[in-house]
Amino acid sequence: MEFSALLTSAGINIAVCILFLSLYSVLRKQPHNFSVYFGRRLAEEKFQKQDDYFSFERLLPTAGWIVKAYWCTEEEIRQVAGLDSVVFLRLFIFSIRIFSITSLICVFGVLPVNYHGKEITHDHIPTEPLNVFTIANIIEESQKLWVHCIALYIITISACILLFNEYKYISRKRLAHITGSSPNPGHFTVLVRSIPKSDNELLDDTIRNFFVNYHGSSYLSHQMILRKGHFQSFVDRAERAYRKFVRVRLSVSERNGKSSMSRCGVCGVRASSFQIYRNKFIEAKKADLTNPEVVDAQKNCPGALVFFKTRYAAVVASRVLQSSNPMLWVTDLAPEPRDVYWSNLWIPYKQIWLRKLATLAASVVFMFVFIIPVAFVQSMMQLEQLKKMFPNLRGLLNKSFFARVVTGYLPSVVLLLSLYTVPPLMMLFSSIEGSISRSGRKRSACLKILFFTVWNVFFVNVLSGSVLNQLNVFTRPKDMPTMLAELVPKQATFFITYVLTSGWASLCSEILQVYNLVYNFFSKCIFCCHQNTEYVYSFPYHTEVPKVLLFILLGFTFAIMAPLILPFLLVYFCLGYLVYRNQILNVYYPKYEMGGKLWPIMHNTIVFSLVLMQVIALGVFTIKHSPVATGFTILLLVATILFNEYCRHRFSRIFEAYSAQDVIELDRDDEQSGRMQEIHQHLQDAYSQTPPGAEGSSRSGGQVPIELILEDPAQEASESSQELCDTVQEVSEAHEHSIEEAAGKAHCV
Amino acid sequence: MEFSALLTSAGINIAVCILFLSLYSVLRKQPHNFSVYFGRRLAEEKFQKQDDYFSFERLLPTAGWIVKAYWCTEEEIRQVAGLDSVVFLRLFIFSIRIFSITSLICVFGVLPVNYHGKEITHDHIPTEPLNVFTIANIIEESQKLWVHCIALYIITISACILLFNEYKYISRKRLAHITGSSPNPGHFTVLVRSIPKSDNELLDDTIRNFFVNYHGSSYLSHQMILRKGHFQSFVDRAERAYRKFVRVRLSVSERNGKSSMSRCGVCGVRASSFQIYRNKFIEAKKADLTNPEVVDAQKNCPGALVFFKTRYAAVVASRVLQSSNPMLWVTDLAPEPRDVYWSNLWIPYKQIWLRKLATLAASVVFMFVFIIPVAFVQSMMQLEQLKKMFPNLRGLLNKSFFARVVTGYLPSVVLLLSLYTVPPLMMLFSSIEGSISRSGRKRSACLKILFFTVWNVFFVNVLSGSVLNQLNVFTRPKDMPTMLAELVPKQATFFITYVLTSGWASLCSEILQVYNLVYNFFSKCIFCCHQNTEYVYSFPYHTEVPKVLLFILLGFTFAIMAPLILPFLLVYFCLGYLVYRNQILNVYYPKYEMGGKLWPIMHNTIVFSLVLMQVIALGVFTIKHSPVATGFTILLLVATILFNEYCRHRFSRIFEAYSAQDVIELDRDDEQSGRMQEIHQHLQDAYSQTPPGAEGSSRSGGQVPIELILEDPAQEASESSQELCDTVQEVSEAHEHSIEEAAGKAHCV
Repeated sequence: MEFSALLTSAGINIAVCILFLSLYSVLRKQPHNFSVYFGRRLAEEKFQKQDDYFSFERLLPTAGWIVKAYWCTEEEIRQVAGLDSVVFLRLFIFSIRIFSITSLICVFGVLPVNYHGKEITHDHIPTEPLNVFTIANIIEESQKLWVHCIALYIITISACILLFNEYKYISRKRLAHITGSSPNPGHFTVLVRSIPKSDNELLDDTIRNFFVNYHGSSYLSHQMILRKGHFQSFVDRAERAYRKFVRVRLSVSERNGKSSMSRCGVCGVRASSFQIYRNKFIEAKKADLTNPEVVDAQKNCPGALVFFKTRYAAVVASRVLQSSNPMLWVTDLAPEPRDVYWSNLWIPYKQIWLRKLATLAASVVFMFVFIIPVAFVQSMMQLEQLKKMFPNLRGLLNKSFFARVVTGYLPSVVLLLSLYTVPPLMMLFSSIEGSISRSGRKRSACLKILFFTVWNVFFVNVLSGSVLNQLNVFTRPKDMPTMLAELVPKQATFFITYVLTSGWASLCSEILQVYNLVYNFFSKCIFCCHQNTEYVYSFPYHTEVPKVLLFILLGFTFAIMAPLILPFLLVYFCLGYLVYRNQILNVYYPKYEMGGKLWPIMHNTIVFSLVLMQVIALGVFTIKHSPVATGFTILLLVATILFNEYCRHRFSRIFEAYSAQDVIELDRDDEQSGRMQEIHQHLQDAYSQTPPGAEGSSRSGGQVPIELILEDPAQEASESSQELCDTVQEVSEAHEHSIEEAAGKAHCV
Repeated sequence: MEFSALLTSAGINIAVCILFLSLYSVLRKQPHNFSVYFGRRLAEEKFQKQDDYFSFERLLPTAGWIVKAYWCTEEEIRQVAGLDSVVFLRLFIFSIRIFSITSLICVFGVLPVNYHGKEITHDHIPTEPLNVFTIANIIEESQKLWVHCIALYIITISACILLFNEYKYISRKRLAHITGSSPNPGHFTVLVRSIPKSDNELLDDTIRNFFVNYHGSSYLSHQMILRKGHFQSFVDRAERAYRKFVRVRLSVSERNGKSSMSRCGVCGVRASSFQIYRNKFIEAKKADLTNPEVVDAQKNCPGALVFFKTRYAAVVASRVLQSSNPMLWVTDLAPEPRDVYWSNLWIPYKQIWLRKLATLAASVVFMFVFIIPVAFVQSMMQLEQLKKMFPNLRGLLNKSFFARVVTGYLPSVVLLLSLYTVPPLMMLFSSIEGSISRSGRKRSACLKILFFTVWNVFFVNVLSGSVLNQLNVFTRPKDMPTMLAELVPKQATFFITYVLTSGWASLCSEILQVYNLVYNFFSKCIFCCHQNTEYVYSFPYHTEVPKVLLFILLGFTFAIMAPLILPFLLVYFCLGYLVYRNQILNVYYPKYEMGGKLWPIMHNTIVFSLVLMQVIALGVFTIKHSPVATGFTILLLVATILFNEYCRHRFSRIFEAYSAQDVIELDRDDEQSGRMQEIHQHLQDAYSQTPPGAEGSSRSGGQVPIELILEDPAQEASESSQELCDTVQEVSEAHEHSIEEAAGKAHCV
């Protein structure tokens, strides 16, 4: 590929980007698109709906959104979108900083050295092949390799300093988040699984006895996790009918704990009556020990949520091994209520290790099977091969412009499209794995997608690009550095176009929300369906974080090999920063909080990128016979690994556990201010188990922050009123029956 | 090597073994050797010293010791030598069981199949080369490989069943050990390191304030770990002088906590007076906050031992992250007093991670550098090469008997001798690593030596035996199975002789205690030095466990490849069981208790051996083109890994942490029986810090169970009396001075 082909590709992409961004700035002003572009604000009802008047201004592209996104402070973002968004944006800030330094050094220092690496005459830059800009252009035993070595040192040292500061900053933010946030039921609750069953005691009593016996001073109460039995499903049906009638709005006041349910207009009973019924049922069920169904339900119980009086007691109970059999009484700190992944809580604990191994194996297999489409994409890079495969297109391919598009643009588009199948699959694997929280599942999926992306985009492209059928090269770890050093510069062209297409284009598609826009257009304008369900998405960290980290990896690995990639990357990071800020502020709504736990993953990947950069440089210096530079690079490699070890010791436990000091201070504050009593009362109702089968898995978290907003409840009322009345009848009958039974028993006694 | 050469080697070894064992049975009856062969019994003074009369019976070899060693029960061994000895002997029991099964299957099932693998006529077995007994004799695509596959299944399944039962049995023993033993100060104590320094507060107060603040209900007291300052060394000198006079005997009553110190005859003061002086000094030092030396000592304090009121509180404090900076207030459960490795407690906590990495790197480097002597040993195997190297010996080497000795015996002796340098070095590495307990150091050394042995004895011999200069084969993990499958059967001869020489001979040298015997002989009989220091050794788990595990590895890997090794191994395990039982009962004295923590290491290594056996079998089946057998072996491999994972989840945490249930029950028992008060009083004095510089590193543990036994204290008295009087003078002056100062201060106030 020539320099001019690169410019063509860049030109196309810049044009496309400007077009899409202008389109966005117009589309976001159209009232019927508000639900697509202002989902979060609509959900919080802060966004004042404008009247649907038409003005010419609505059709003009403007840059106001960029200004708004830029001037928003970090504290504002934390308040509206949680700590995770802040961490994600810090990743961009780090990238912009480090790649500004890197670009400065590499474009003005390394690039000229590469260009003048061989003693040949350069006349016309646009017709130069791209590899004169790479390190491949430098002759062996050249003194100029010192420039590369110094650049390596500057990049690594500044990256380490910036990384350390970021880790420190984010740790501080996380601690402030833990101590500063309103009381979280998850801090007081421990999830106990694998409770031993005894024949002469109900499980309920077993749990109570155990915790009263060993944690008597701090045990508050517990709530069993019940599999859905007949009894349960019956109550659920009633609730489901009731929910259909009630218009639940998430208002700010509700989020602060006050319930503002409106009356259900058909029956004339208060909306919370069902809750009362439900509680009575549960009480009745508790008393009824002779009922085989109750006993059966208890037998099937996979665990319980145990509430403690203080946060410290919960932390202690979760950290200490409970029983001398480590497979019994397994305790974990419970996720916060909206984060609980209920359907996974029903998995018997004994399966978890097997599930983890199985999903690990499945992910690895998938990672390697995916080589096939990537190899196909790579084969498309070679024009000659393409001409052989499609002889009909020979005429078209002989034209210069088409050839450029095909070699420079199409391969990465195909790769991008095939990559879209990965996140859902990895998310499925992570669900099967048995994570107890939604955030844990997302983190696990993020990690899987990250491994997948780095392997299939970076390694497979680098290695199979030139030695397609020599897959056995993977089995020689010792030759890896020199092999990478040979192959990486050759693939520079592909990755530069990858940044242009996959990187820039993905930002455009992100800001335009193409899928939602089209869906919205069809449902609103074509089918005139006004009662559509305005579902607000949470931020897809599991797809976006690996994407950004891949670009950081590309940036580091190509920094001294092929510095031409850096300006394009820098543009990507700057644009990405603005786009994601805007999206986080306007579109996505955080359904649960990971508390910045993604940062260690990001940190480790960045350090891995640095190490990979050094390993490749090591290979290059070996190939070019520069032993002193090789020695200095090994030194740098060791120092980088030591730096990472230090960071791990210094910070990583902050992201895994709560410290006694913080937790005890929080407990003391609450006790002194008298809030503790209130917290204890709320704890009992915090975790409500709505089985996912009953309401769809997307809303199984019990406390769903954003409910479906029914525009006109009366419309659906006619259909469901019969169901509701039947259910109410059933409920009250069953209730009376159980009361009679209890009374009968009392008589007998 | 021919079968007859093997028989020669076996013959030599059997003769040597019988000779050594007879020699042992004679030597142990000689009274002047009692200190060598009955060290533990002498130390416990249970062994009744016989009069030194001469009888003819004393010169007759007998087998009584074997009977005694065999009939001793496991419970007796646990009581006299601790749980670790039991675990070590269980390893032998496991080995005998599994290799009985394996020998039965392989010698009667696999060996005939191997022998008749090719359609050739066998006439005279002794002249057969050994490789007709190996799997190399089987032709490709043979149906007979099914026998090997079935043997593999039977061996793996029975090994897994036995392993699981052993793990379960040892876990139960460990739990019984924790709950059944007398109160251990280590259970109540937490070692706190990396205490933040503040300018306006003494470290002593910082510690007290922190624990009173956050663990107020359970905090008892604390003891600072002080680096040796001038003040300290001065007190130490006094103590040292005092100790020279006192004859301390370890009697059973003393071990139970009662002090039975005799009077020191020169000064007329009671023996414990120095303890009183010492305590007064420490008190005076505490009050004296203006003394820059005291302030300085506090600044240099690397940590403290914090005592808690209950075991549960100590467990909680050790498990929970204390501060929001994970590098501060680092807590670990303290080792028991005699197990503390004081000189490592003085290492600043911030260095620990760096030290661990550095020793890891050093061990790995040493592991690879050691290849050179091993390669030399291997080159000695080839007679032709030897003839070239030493042309003078050509005449000798041409003789059949010498040739057999050289090829069959010498190489493993050389290897064995060079291996003797490894344990001290690995022990040094483990000391540098910064382990806080002696048992932790030994465990770490054991693991290092294990890796070293498996790598340098097994892998390097297998791989470099035939492809000496092709060390780059290590870099192709994919080809490993087929490569091992080709090379392992070829090295069968070497390893069979290795079992004979290294295995059997090491048992003989173990039971004879050659080094101690010679030392004892010279010191007692030649130099007539009767006041020699009778030092009792603790069992060298770090050298013996890797040795036994290596033989288990050899047994599994050669089981189906070259079954001839199995009978020799079985003899080794049976003999080893008796020899080590005898040595544990008579010679070694347990100075500290690891609580069976070596078992997980043993278990993992055995599972690794099984996996290696399967991987090699996989290679063999691939080479011999038996795809169905390959498939079945992969299935077995996966099942074995799953089995190991299950065991890890089921048992490993028992060996890492104490469970709340057990610990709380223990606390309750002590509280109800009123023993708690007594335990608390003892806690304060349990950990005494005697700097190793003052008394030699071997006795730095404070509570040294076995003191030097001075036969005649009067002899040394004349030398030390002057020193003692001087020191007493100094001590009392300094004491008076400090009292005056304190009084002066009181006046000022």
